[in-house]
Amino acid sequence: MEPNSSNIRSNQDAASPAQGLLSKKISRREVLKYAGIGGIGLLLGGSGGYGLLAAQEKLSPSSKKNHDRVASMEQIPFYDQHQAGIITPAQNFLCFASFDLTTNSLSEVRKLFQLWTESASLMTSGQMLGNTNNSQNLPPSDTGEAAGLTTSKLTITFGVGPSFFDSRYGLSSKKPASFDELPSFRGDALLPEWCGGDIGVQVCADDMQVAFHAVRNLARIARGTAVMRWMQEGFQRSSTADPSGGTPRNLLGFKDGTGNPDTHDKQAMNEIVWARADNGANWMQGGSYMVARRIRMRIEIWDRSPLSDQEQTFGRYRDSGAPIGSKDEFAPLDLEAKDSSGKPLIPLNSHSRLAHTDGIKMLRRAYSYTGGIDAKTGQLDAGLFFICYQKDIQKQFISMQQKLAASDKLNEYIVHVGSAVFACFPGVRQGGYIGDTLF
Amino acid sequence: MEPNSSNIRSNQDAASPAQGLLSKKISRREVLKYAGIGGIGLLLGGSGGYGLLAAQEKLSPSSKKNHDRVASMEQIPFYDQHQAGIITPAQNFLCFASFDLTTNSLSEVRKLFQLWTESASLMTSGQMLGNTNNSQNLPPSDTGEAAGLTTSKLTITFGVGPSFFDSRYGLSSKKPASFDELPSFRGDALLPEWCGGDIGVQVCADDMQVAFHAVRNLARIARGTAVMRWMQEGFQRSSTADPSGGTPRNLLGFKDGTGNPDTHDKQAMNEIVWARADNGANWMQGGSYMVARRIRMRIEIWDRSPLSDQEQTFGRYRDSGAPIGSKDEFAPLDLEAKDSSGKPLIPLNSHSRLAHTDGIKMLRRAYSYTGGIDAKTGQLDAGLFFICYQKDIQKQFISMQQKLAASDKLNEYIVHVGSAVFACFPGVRQGGYIGDTLF
Repeated sequence: MEPNSSNIRSNQDAASPAQGLLSKKISRREVLKYAGIGGIGLLLGGSGGYGLLAAQEKLSPSSKKNHDRVASMEQIPFYDQHQAGIITPAQNFLCFASFDLTTNSLSEVRKLFQLWTESASLMTSGQMLGNTNNSQNLPPSDTGEAAGLTTSKLTITFGVGPSFFDSRYGLSSKKPASFDELPSFRGDALLPEWCGGDIGVQVCADDMQVAFHAVRNLARIARGTAVMRWMQEGFQRSSTADPSGGTPRNLLGFKDGTGNPDTHDKQAMNEIVWARADNGANWMQGGSYMVARRIRMRIEIWDRSPLSDQEQTFGRYRDSGAPIGSKDEFAPLDLEAKDSSGKPLIPLNSHSRLAHTDGIKMLRRAYSYTGGIDAKTGQLDAGLFFICYQKDIQKQFISMQQKLAASDKLNEYIVHVGSAVFACFPGVRQGGYIGDTLF
Repeated sequence: MEPNSSNIRSNQDAASPAQGLLSKKISRREVLKYAGIGGIGLLLGGSGGYGLLAAQEKLSPSSKKNHDRVASMEQIPFYDQHQAGIITPAQNFLCFASFDLTTNSLSEVRKLFQLWTESASLMTSGQMLGNTNNSQNLPPSDTGEAAGLTTSKLTITFGVGPSFFDSRYGLSSKKPASFDELPSFRGDALLPEWCGGDIGVQVCADDMQVAFHAVRNLARIARGTAVMRWMQEGFQRSSTADPSGGTPRNLLGFKDGTGNPDTHDKQAMNEIVWARADNGANWMQGGSYMVARRIRMRIEIWDRSPLSDQEQTFGRYRDSGAPIGSKDEFAPLDLEAKDSSGKPLIPLNSHSRLAHTDGIKMLRRAYSYTGGIDAKTGQLDAGLFFICYQKDIQKQFISMQQKLAASDKLNEYIVHVGSAVFACFPGVRQGGYIGDTLF
C-alpha cells in the first residue's frame, strides 16, 4: 500500500483498517456479485485478488501513476474526531445524494458502510477506486472522470434518516429521542421526490466533477443494497471568482451566512453543533444533526421588488450585507434601534431579526441551485439548498423555522419544496468505519 | 462613463455605442414599462435619468465601488471581429439558454438585441447593470449575485434558430440556405422541452454564479419580448482541479475534445468554423453555425461494461486518451493498423474512427451535465451537452452524425434527447449591436 509515485500522498489511516475489514468480511462469491458479472453491480471487494486495496500493489508503477489522481495540499483528512464537511469551510460545490436501502439485512447495510468508508478515504485522498482500472476483461472499478484531478478539498459526510430506525434492522431502540422527519411548517409545499431518505450523503469539493464523481461511485457501490432517491447539485461563487473569500451571495443577491458561528471556536461548536450522548443515543456523541431544505426562490417576483423592500425583507443592506442602520457586515444586529418615527430600523418581520432572536444558533452551509426551467410554470427552478448542522433539531432548527414560517417577510419570495433530516455520525477513527458506533 | 475606481476596467467600446443607441431609441414611457412599474418587467433604459449607462455617472464613488464587479485579467472582450465564446478556450462552466420570442414586432426584437448588447458588454467587463442598484424605490437593475466577483472569463454568444425566419418578422428571405432544424437521426429520442428556440444564448465562465447571473439578467431584460424555453447548466473539471490544462474527461471517463482543430490556426478556423457569405446570407459572414445536442449517457450500463469494451467503443485508451495502438493522446488515428489476426486495431464501428473519416472537422465545445435523478427511471439524468461550431451544418455536423447514428458503437450507451441549431452572428463592432448585419 505504498504509493509508487512521490506526488501521490499516501493515506495510511485510510488504507489499513479498510483492507483488514474487507479481507475478513467479503467472500469471493460476493466480490463476483459486486463485480457486475452476475449483472448486479460493480465490484469492490476483498480477498482473492479482487481487493480494492490489495490490488493497487499489483498495478505497475507506470499504470498506477497514470491512473491515480493527484493528491495535493487541498486534501482534507477523512479519518478524524468529527466527520469532515461539517465545520470544514464550505467548498465551492455540492453534490448531495439521498439513498433508500433496498435490503432488509443489517449485515448488508454494515458492509455497505464498510465499502463506503474505504472508498471515501481513497477518494478524499486523491486515489482511484479499486483494481480493475487496467484490467481489460472487467468493468473499471473507478468511473474515471476524476482521473488526474486534484482532491479539490473533497469531503464526504454520511448520515441516516429517521426511516433508518424503522423495523427493518432492529435498530429502533437506538433512534435518538425526537429524531423524526420535520413537522409541517406553514407555507411548506413539499414534493415527495425531494424529501427524506434512509441515508444522506453530503459531498462537497472545490470542483464539480470531483464532487459528482464521488456521488456516482458511492451509488455504484451501493447497487443491490441502496438506490438513490434524489440528488441535488449546488454551487457558490468559486474561490477564483472571489479571491477575498468574502461571504457568498445567494441568488436573491444578498450575502448569506454572515451570522454563522465561528467554526474555530471549539466551545461554540460544542454548544451549537456537536451532539452529546444525552438524548438516548450514545452513538451520536461527536456527530451532528443535519437539516436539509430545498428552498425554491420566486426569482421573477423578487426581481420586480424595489430595493427597499428587499432590504426590509432581509433586515440588511444588499450592498454591504450590514444590518440596516449599521455600516459593517459583521456588526451585531441592533434590535432596539429605531428610525425618527419610532419604527424599528430592522423590521419586526425581517428575516435576520427573526432568525437571530432567542439566541438560537446553528451552523449553516447553504448552496445555490438551478435546475433549468420548470416546465409547469415556465419559470426558473432555482433557489437555495439549505443545509444546517446542530446538536438538537427540535431546539434549534424547528424552533427557528416555526418562527420564520409564521412571520418572515421573506416567505413572499420563497417556498420550501424539499426536506430531510439526517443524524450524521461522529468521525471515523483509524480502524473503524462509518456508523460503527451505531452497529 | 469613467470608472471611479482604479480596479474597475472601463470598456469604452461597450459604453459609447450602446449609450447612443439607447438615448435615441428608447422613450421614457418604455423605460417605465421595462422598469416593471407597469407590472411587466425590469428596467433598463435610456433617457430621463433611467439610462443604464448614464446612470452610473450619478452613483457616488463609494457606492459605485461597492456595487461594481471586479474586472481582471480574466476579461474577454465582447466587441471583436467574431463573437467571443466560439474559439475562446472553453471556460469551466456553461449556462445555455434558449428563448422564444413572444412579440411579432421586428422593432421590439431589434430593441431586445440592443439592450442585450449593452448588458453583455457591461457584464463581460465586470460591471453591474443599470442605475437603480442604490435606488430605494425601484427594483435593482442588476440582480446582484455577481457583485464583487471577477469577470471569470465570461463570454456571451448569441444566435438565432430557423424559427426566427418564419413569417413574423419579414426576414424569411434572409434565412441561410439549408439552415433548418436537424433531420431526424437514427436512435434520436428527442424531448420537445429540450429542443429548438428562436434565440440561443451560450454563456460560459470560469464561475457558475457569474454564468448564471448573466443568463438570469438577460432573461429579465427580455421580459415582455421573449421567454426562456429551456436552460442547461454544464461543467468541466475546473482549472484549479487540473492545473495542467489537459483535455477534460466526459462522464464516461474518457478524454473529450482531443481531436479538436487548433483555434490559433487562422486558416483552419476559416475553413472549419467561420461562415462565408456564400450561402445566401451575407449577414452571417464571420459568424458560425452552432449545433447543440443534449446527449444523455446510460451511465449505469456503461459502468458495467469491461474496460476493453469501453476502449473499443471509443477506439482510444481510457487512461491516456491515445488511439488504440498508439501511446500519445495526440497521435494521429492510424486507421490502417491491424492486430495479429488482421482485425483493425481501431474498430470499424468505434466512435473516434467514425468521427474522423472523410476529413470532416468541426469545433467541439462540450460540457458535462447532471440533472439529478430521472423520476421515471430512478437513474441519473447525466451526460454531455454537446456544442459544436462549423461553417456548414449540412456538410459538417449532419454528414458526421448520420454516420455515427448508423453505426457508432457508442450508441449503446448514449441517447440524444435534445437538439437545436443556431446561426451565431458575426462579432459586434464598436457602435453596432448583436444582429445588426441582419436587421
